[in-house]
Amino acid sequence: MSAAKQILALNRFDGDDTAFLPPDLAERVIRRRATFGAASVLFYEQPIEMVRGEGVYLFDAAGNRYLDMYNNVPSVGHCHPAVASAIAAQAARLNVHTRYLNRGVEAYAERLLSHFPAPLSNLVMTCTGSESNDLAMRIASAVTGKGGFVVTRAAYHGNTTAVTAISPSAFSAAPLQPHVRLIPAPQEAGDVAGVFAAHLRAAIAELEESGIGFAALVVDSIFSSDGIFADPPGFLQTALNAVHEAGGLIIADEVQPGFGRTGAGIWGFTRHGIVPDIVTMGKPMGNGFPMGGVVTQPDYLAHFCAATGYFNTFGGNPVAAAAGNAVLDVITEECLIDNAALSGDFLKQGLLELKKEFPRIGGVRGAGLFIGLDFINPETGAPDQPYASNIINAMKQHHILIGAAGLYGHTLKIRPPLCFNIGHGTLFLETLRRVLAGG
Amino acid sequence: MSAAKQILALNRFDGDDTAFLPPDLAERVIRRRATFGAASVLFYEQPIEMVRGEGVYLFDAAGNRYLDMYNNVPSVGHCHPAVASAIAAQAARLNVHTRYLNRGVEAYAERLLSHFPAPLSNLVMTCTGSESNDLAMRIASAVTGKGGFVVTRAAYHGNTTAVTAISPSAFSAAPLQPHVRLIPAPQEAGDVAGVFAAHLRAAIAELEESGIGFAALVVDSIFSSDGIFADPPGFLQTALNAVHEAGGLIIADEVQPGFGRTGAGIWGFTRHGIVPDIVTMGKPMGNGFPMGGVVTQPDYLAHFCAATGYFNTFGGNPVAAAAGNAVLDVITEECLIDNAALSGDFLKQGLLELKKEFPRIGGVRGAGLFIGLDFINPETGAPDQPYASNIINAMKQHHILIGAAGLYGHTLKIRPPLCFNIGHGTLFLETLRRVLAGG
Repeated sequence: MSAAKQILALNRFDGDDTAFLPPDLAERVIRRRATFGAASVLFYEQPIEMVRGEGVYLFDAAGNRYLDMYNNVPSVGHCHPAVASAIAAQAARLNVHTRYLNRGVEAYAERLLSHFPAPLSNLVMTCTGSESNDLAMRIASAVTGKGGFVVTRAAYHGNTTAVTAISPSAFSAAPLQPHVRLIPAPQEAGDVAGVFAAHLRAAIAELEESGIGFAALVVDSIFSSDGIFADPPGFLQTALNAVHEAGGLIIADEVQPGFGRTGAGIWGFTRHGIVPDIVTMGKPMGNGFPMGGVVTQPDYLAHFCAATGYFNTFGGNPVAAAAGNAVLDVITEECLIDNAALSGDFLKQGLLELKKEFPRIGGVRGAGLFIGLDFINPETGAPDQPYASNIINAMKQHHILIGAAGLYGHTLKIRPPLCFNIGHGTLFLETLRRVLAGG
Repeated sequence: MSAAKQILALNRFDGDDTAFLPPDLAERVIRRRATFGAASVLFYEQPIEMVRGEGVYLFDAAGNRYLDMYNNVPSVGHCHPAVASAIAAQAARLNVHTRYLNRGVEAYAERLLSHFPAPLSNLVMTCTGSESNDLAMRIASAVTGKGGFVVTRAAYHGNTTAVTAISPSAFSAAPLQPHVRLIPAPQEAGDVAGVFAAHLRAAIAELEESGIGFAALVVDSIFSSDGIFADPPGFLQTALNAVHEAGGLIIADEVQPGFGRTGAGIWGFTRHGIVPDIVTMGKPMGNGFPMGGVVTQPDYLAHFCAATGYFNTFGGNPVAAAAGNAVLDVITEECLIDNAALSGDFLKQGLLELKKEFPRIGGVRGAGLFIGLDFINPETGAPDQPYASNIINAMKQHHILIGAAGLYGHTLKIRPPLCFNIGHGTLFLETLRRVLAGG
């Protein structure tokens, strides 16, 4: 089984394996499989039926409450009342495309853009992070006249045809396309900046030699699906320099680190002190309302639009603007960026304490409320994906939802909603200790 | 100016042309342009600020009421209370991805699939029609092992990289890619089926000879952006036969004709008596809530999934399911398919009466509440795009919103929400008569 295939398989219910389920659950799963077919993916050896969400919690049909350490879409909290009521009010009043003027849409766009450094002053609203990255790639190719992209080895940037090609964690059997070059994720220590930039320069040189040419580095500054690599802050500056020296662009995919998650500002890239050429947004932007966006400088967007009309029917509709605006309100009013920093530090310190106690724990990395924790073979130090999978299923028995990431699928991906507090952190750490101790 | 460029330009406010606007409107437009940049498109020589929608009406900031003959996204009516309240209730209760079981999502999927003929029994939920067509193209390529697509000359199927390549009406300067072949839209009379299929066979043969091979015909059965070609019902059967003889698939893009618009069943393809291999959905599916879907047979989906993981974060979330379910309720409870047939016939008869009176009117075509009306030079019969543009702006002065389509941009695209009734039809016909008479 390839590493990528392992990630796909991890923490996934095998659709044909219903014999071990209670009869009513087996029937539900079989019916679902008949409907959603081969694209149906359910979490856990015994899938859960969810009925309600609130803050950091999800509730199943039997009334059990689960602490959600997985889900970064409802980033300001499941069903946050401020966002839900903004959606409700606007859906009842006006929901139309962007070819008419609308104050709510324009005010949201101006507010969102006020959080970006110059020269990033134009916004295209889309419906998903995938649509955002798909458009960003075309803008980069239009500006540079080149077709080649560099991404990290287990990157995930979305699900369209073009974006799947730069998402090696999404394909198991399909070969890598010639316009895509993979580089290793940043290393954990040592000359992180220098080694990452060296791999990048080599990949750029290969693309240039191939005749395809180098358009852009597409990078998620928290390296989510690679296993979470955040430190030292600023190491991406050297990569940015290498990209610009080669005449390419840097696309910062903020679908994962954006909207306050890293606790160091609203964007992941600000933690690195860089100004990307194109920024893409998705998941947390509307707290679950389907919306995304691309921000870039006006001449880059104009360059693309000169050849291709871009219109997104649902993109930037007034309901999306209302949801997005409420998300920005909540981030400010509830001090969620500071909370991500403080709660994240508390979690990370607690995990480092656990590491002293349990030799199965390898690296502990992250920023704010996005932390990766490696499970390893204590003798060899090798990644231990089956152990990670066991822990994930055991944590579920203790009503904590969590997933894995990384090239080898052995990294616990700790990514709760941003309203996660010290009390939730204590619950998580105590439960993890119990599970690690075999309790 | 190319024909495609003409369509883009039609009924579009030129962002630099603010000198003729009232000062407050000019300021709004300039600020919007500073935010949305080159991708900003506004309708009308003097853009409108919208603040509210209800049924077939939109209301501007000054309180003017507009009859919306353009918008097929809020297909069961702007801000329909049943849909708005379904969205509000679900957004406050649970909004999460599809990797947990959820009764609302599963019930909606089963209900939607019950409207499809065998063997179309698997559903993948996406966020937009673009994402749906993007996925459908990959399924077709995976199943056939081929990369070539045939579409009509002014087709529009969406905005991703892959789908833009098969949307000639979306690019003005970019060249056609070698894996895409264009065929003329169906003709208005004569051997419609035979001529269309002959063009198709020739395009398929070219793709096969080129070595790229033929994967699929992607077709919107109402030929919306080509100028609306609906008759005779059934003419697509001959095309389907040609596709299958060549070992290819037919992708029915139901973004435009789907969900009752043609008045002859819930899908456009049923009017032609065909069973497509893949069906894609978008715009009207959630009455403005961003959602889309792909329906196909299980082995086709399995074939694709064997090589590529497909997951759509927002796709199939419980709020989308609630919105989609409410849309199906309203279509049934308000008899919107029958209404589309009856109101559409009333409109079409009225337009044919106007044609006798006004030699500027050429063809009148359509099905249900999707009607195309050509404006021509009465002497030569040639398409008259500037006249269509004048009529569109004049209708706006009379508070009726309408757009144009077609290769030459001379076809009035009559496509109101499906709750459009005979009274609205009378208002529209009387206003159009006045405008045509120069009143």
